[in-house]
Amino acid sequence: MHAREMISTHPHVRGNTNDALIHCIEECYDCAQTCTTCADACLGEPMVAELVQCIRLNMDCADVCAATGAVATRRSGSNEAVIRAMLEACATACRLCAEECEAHATMHEHCRICAEACRSCEDACRKAMQSMSH
Amino acid sequence: MHAREMISTHPHVRGNTNDALIHCIEECYDCAQTCTTCADACLGEPMVAELVQCIRLNMDCADVCAATGAVATRRSGSNEAVIRAMLEACATACRLCAEECEAHATMHEHCRICAEACRSCEDACRKAMQSMSH
Amino acid sequence: MHAREMISTHPHVRGNTNDALIHCIEECYDCAQTCTTCADACLGEPMVAELVQCIRLNMDCADVCAATGAVATRRSGSNEAVIRAMLEACATACRLCAEECEAHATMHEHCRICAEACRSCEDACRKAMQSMSH
Amino acid sequence: MHAREMISTHPHVRGNTNDALIHCIEECYDCAQTCTTCADACLGEPMVAELVQCIRLNMDCADVCAATGAVATRRSGSNEAVIRAMLEACATACRLCAEECEAHATMHEHCRICAEACRSCEDACRKAMQSMSH
Repeated sequence: MHAREMISTHPHVRGNTNDALIHCIEECYDCAQTCTTCADACLGEPMVAELVQCIRLNMDCADVCAATGAVATRRSGSNEAVIRAMLEACATACRLCAEECEAHATMHEHCRICAEACRSCEDACRKAMQSMSH
Repeated sequence: MHAREMISTHPHVRGNTNDALIHCIEECYDCAQTCTTCADACLGEPMVAELVQCIRLNMDCADVCAATGAVATRRSGSNEAVIRAMLEACATACRLCAEECEAHATMHEHCRICAEACRSCEDACRKAMQSMSH
Repeated sequence: MHAREMISTHPHVRGNTNDALIHCIEECYDCAQTCTTCADACLGEPMVAELVQCIRLNMDCADVCAATGAVATRRSGSNEAVIRAMLEACATACRLCAEECEAHATMHEHCRICAEACRSCEDACRKAMQSMSH
Repeated sequence: MHAREMISTHPHVRGNTNDALIHCIEECYDCAQTCTTCADACLGEPMVAELVQCIRLNMDCADVCAATGAVATRRSGSNEAVIRAMLEACATACRLCAEECEAHATMHEHCRICAEACRSCEDACRKAMQSMSH
């Protein structure tokens, strides 16, 4: 992704990038795509009825990650309260989706990979929140 | 919108709709559209340089409202924690966008209407949060 | 929705609204919400395995409608080619989703209503395309 | 991104990935993020009034790329018509955004990088369309 290269050219950012936030933005876009794939892959499994809750959490997580990635990209100081609230919501969505995917990880490789992506994004959201508090 | 009619046919909801949540979903989709219009209208004003922060908050608010509307639509009990966190984030985004738009309301009619839509959506998010706590 | 009221205050639009496009924008946001509900309602049905294709088309249609609504809202002359291409894609997504939902309409009330919403949005997209050609 | 790894585990795809489509999905998510950054960076420039059309095209391109990436991820045969229409719309949005960004590329580094990302995504959309025709 071009996230780091692009954000470093932002007139308000030059020479003062927040690496934790940039990493989090990349994780959010990645996790949105991963969860969208996992939902569709779950829909393709013969035992789809057992994966209904997983599909719902995948879709919620994809929507929250996409919005969080966009809001965090639009970094501009005075909307810090929105970024913080979205990072909090995103960490929650990622945690719940990871827990559900982990329950299916031995059966479905897409759930195993998706759980890892969600845990990684949850962690990146928490580190980005910390980076904004000082 | 078909929100109420559609949600009342959901197999998990039948005969037990949460009116505050359904109203909130309608407000979220409406506010997303209103903020997207306000951002574009601000971009068309001769004094666009004075409206930069308004445009950014419009875009953040539109993204958060759209995601909140989708997540709240996908109501399914076990993702209540995600809905709650998004309602909280959405109330914050709406409040900040309303405050900024109110500062331009006497100059720009689109900011006046957008501020009202944001206050209305903020209120609907708070009532939906309350409706989910009992 | 505030679409008509808001767009009429846009500095580039004042006194010269395109009613077919405004109606289409409202239909797009409505159809996005309706399809998101139908996908979740289908996931809640005991025979979910028979509704997999319906769920996928619901999700595609919701994504395309949401993007089309936003792009059409951001009306500004020089992006007409993007609006046109999205109206075309949206009419296609709505038609395919409607056809699939119609096949389940006698069994599932949410599919019946969703099919109607998709047909209505498809029609609005076609009329908006015509309104932009003269 | 996990796109390739995830899609290769999809039950309908196993052992038969469409590399051009997967590359296109990655480009769409990347371009959505890049255009969102470019819009915000343009809003931060002192000469924002000269960049209004660039900001609008950035936002349109971001919305279209995000929807195209999601729809293309939800690959399932029978929605090929939707994927095709969205790839067409996405190539158009990327081309127009690239042309506008190129006009500012010598003045603004973010526009130069964004133009490259848009050209790359446009190219990936066209190759994905070709890959689906045989």
